[in-house]
Amino acid sequence: MSTSATLLEEAIGRVVAAAPPGDPVAVQTHLDALTKPPGSLGRLEALALQVGCVLGDPPPSLDRAVVFVFAADHGVSARGVSAYPAEVTAQMCANFSGGGAAINVLARTCGAQVRVVDVGVAADVAGLDGIEHRKVRAGTDDLSARPAMTAEEVMAALAVGVEVAGGADAWLVGVGEMGIANTTAAAAVTACLTGAAAHEVVGRGTGIDDRGLARKREVVKHAVARVVRLEDPRDDALEVLRQVGGLEIAAMTGAMVGAAARGALVLVDGFISSAAALAACRLCTALPPYLVASHRSTEPGHAVVLDTLGLVPLLDFEMRLGEGTGCALAIPVVRAGGALLSDMATFQSAGISGPGGDVPGAAS
Amino acid sequence: MSTSATLLEEAIGRVVAAAPPGDPVAVQTHLDALTKPPGSLGRLEALALQVGCVLGDPPPSLDRAVVFVFAADHGVSARGVSAYPAEVTAQMCANFSGGGAAINVLARTCGAQVRVVDVGVAADVAGLDGIEHRKVRAGTDDLSARPAMTAEEVMAALAVGVEVAGGADAWLVGVGEMGIANTTAAAAVTACLTGAAAHEVVGRGTGIDDRGLARKREVVKHAVARVVRLEDPRDDALEVLRQVGGLEIAAMTGAMVGAAARGALVLVDGFISSAAALAACRLCTALPPYLVASHRSTEPGHAVVLDTLGLVPLLDFEMRLGEGTGCALAIPVVRAGGALLSDMATFQSAGISGPGGDVPGAAS
Repeated sequence: MSTSATLLEEAIGRVVAAAPPGDPVAVQTHLDALTKPPGSLGRLEALALQVGCVLGDPPPSLDRAVVFVFAADHGVSARGVSAYPAEVTAQMCANFSGGGAAINVLARTCGAQVRVVDVGVAADVAGLDGIEHRKVRAGTDDLSARPAMTAEEVMAALAVGVEVAGGADAWLVGVGEMGIANTTAAAAVTACLTGAAAHEVVGRGTGIDDRGLARKREVVKHAVARVVRLEDPRDDALEVLRQVGGLEIAAMTGAMVGAAARGALVLVDGFISSAAALAACRLCTALPPYLVASHRSTEPGHAVVLDTLGLVPLLDFEMRLGEGTGCALAIPVVRAGGALLSDMATFQSAGISGPGGDVPGAAS
Repeated sequence: MSTSATLLEEAIGRVVAAAPPGDPVAVQTHLDALTKPPGSLGRLEALALQVGCVLGDPPPSLDRAVVFVFAADHGVSARGVSAYPAEVTAQMCANFSGGGAAINVLARTCGAQVRVVDVGVAADVAGLDGIEHRKVRAGTDDLSARPAMTAEEVMAALAVGVEVAGGADAWLVGVGEMGIANTTAAAAVTACLTGAAAHEVVGRGTGIDDRGLARKREVVKHAVARVVRLEDPRDDALEVLRQVGGLEIAAMTGAMVGAAARGALVLVDGFISSAAALAACRLCTALPPYLVASHRSTEPGHAVVLDTLGLVPLLDFEMRLGEGTGCALAIPVVRAGGALLSDMATFQSAGISGPGGDVPGAAS
C-alpha cells in the first residue's frame, strides 16, 4: 500500500474506532435543564446536541476555527462549462494571498483562520505567500473525454486533505474550495454517487448562460455514462473521483475524514463541498455524525446531496460562491450552540421556577 | 407636551429628517464590482446593501453591538395564559444579572453587550447588579379586563426606550425582552394593528397546554374587541399599547425609534419584538429601512407581523425564547454583510478576469 493510501486507511480507522464520544441522552438531559423552556432554542439545541456528542459536554473552546480552501483546475473548463476562464483559479489564489476575497473577509469577521491549499492549480502559484503548496498535478484532464486523473493522483490528493486537516489546530474545521469549472465535476460526482440525472444536479455555477448550461448538462451526462460503477462503496467512490472528480474535491474528501479522525466537527460548505462529503461518507461510513451542513446553496445538485446525506443546513442565504464562505457564516452559530452547554445556568443553579411554579430539583 | 412625549417626538423627527443616507445604486455598483460572481452571495448582498444605505459605504466598525432586554410583568399572567408563573420574570432578571441566561451566553460568543432594563418588573429587583432600573410601574393591569396602563405610562415607557437605545454606543442595536405572559400582550397588539384574528396570532408561547391555549385565545379575542381604533396611525398605536400592550413592549417600540434616530441598524428579535416594531412603524413611518429581522420564530403571530412589515428574517432556527437571542445570533451575519463593503477586493483592484476573460475596467 502506498504512503497516501496508508494515511487514508489510518484516518478512516480512527473515525470508526472513536465514534462520537458523547452520550446523547446525557447531553439532551443537560439541555433540558438549562434556563429556557425546553426546546425553545429549536435547531440551535439540536446543534448543541451534536456539538456535545462530538466534542464533549461541555465542549472545549471553539474560539479557534479554520476554513480550508482547496484550489485546483479542471481540464473540462476548456469545454465552455463555466462563465469564467480557467486563469481565474490562480488569480483568486493571489486574491486569497492578499486577503481580499470573500472568504478572507468573512473569516476575519468571525476570527477564523483561512488555509488555502494548492492541490492542483494549473498555473504556477509557488510565489504566493500564505498558500500551502501541495500540488499533486497542474489541473485534471478533461473529464468529458477521459478519466480526470489516475488512481494514484486521487489517493495523493486525498492524502493531502487527510494530512492538512488532520493537523489543524481547531475543533471546527470548514472545508471549501476554489476551482473554475468545479461545479461540473461536483455534478458528475453527485450524479454517479446518488443516481440522479444530469439535469437534476447541473446548475449555472458562477452564472453560465442558457447555451452554456445545455453544454454543461451534456458534458455531465456523457461523463457519467462512461463510469463503470463498482460494488464496494469505497472502491466505487475512489473510481468516481478518478473518472469525473477533481483534485480539490478529492482533497476535500480526505480533509473531512482527516478532521473527523482527530475528533473535530466538520463544516460542509456548498455544493462542491457536499459532493466531497458524499464521497467521504462512502469511504468512511462512520463520518456522518461529524458533519454540519453550513448553508443551502442555490445549485440544484446541493439539495440532492443534502437529501442523500440527511443533512439540514443551518443557513439559507441563496449563496453560490464557494470558497468556504458558508462555513465562515456558520462558525458563529456552531460556537453559539456549544456555548449553551458550556456557559448557561440550569433552572436549579439559578433558582428559577419551572412550569407551574416549582423550582425543578429543589427541595419542596 | 410632557418631557417623555417630547423625547419621542424629537426621535421620530430625527428619523424622518435623516432617512438612510446611502445611495442604493452606488452601493449596489460597489457590491457588483467585488471579486465574486455578481449576486453569488445572495441574501448576504441584500443585507450588505441595507448596511451600506443605513450606515454608509464603507460602514463604520460593527465590532460593538448591543442587545437590549426590556423586562416587565403583565397583570394578565393571573389568567393562566403562560406555562410559567409571573415570578419567573424577576428570577430571570437575577439570571441575566449573573450572566447565565441564554442571551448572556449567546451575546458573549459574538462579543455583543447585553443591557437589561427593568421597565416594569412586578417584584423589586433594585438590588440586582447590571440591571438598569427604569421601572415605570410594577407590572401592567390585567389587559383582559381593563386597559393595561395609562397613556402617561405608555409614553414614559416609550421614552425609556428612546433614551437608552438613543444613547447606545453601537451601530448594531438588538431589541429583546423578558416578561411572563408577554406573548399574550404581543398577540393582542398584533391583532389590533394588523386586523388578524386571535387564533392567527396566539401561539403556545413558552409551551402552554391545550386548555391554556384556548384560554389565551379567548383572552386576546375579548381584549381586542374592547379596543376602539383611532384614525390617526400614531394615536392608534399609542391607544393599542395602552389598552393591550406591555411596559416592555412600549419600551422596545421607543428603543427602535431611538436607535434609528441616532442612525443605528435595528435588529428585531422574535414575535414580541416584531409587535413592537409594528407599533414603532406606525409611530414613525420612516423606520422600516432601519429594521433587520433576525430570525423567524415558531409563534404564529410572528409570521403575521413579518408579512405586514415585509421583512424576511435572516435565520430560521425554530426558536421561541425571546430575550434578544435571535438578535445575538444575527449580529455576526450583519457584521459579515458590512465587511463585504469594508474589506473585499474588486475585480479591478485584484486584477482578476471577469466572465469571458476580461479584467473589468482594465485597459485592453
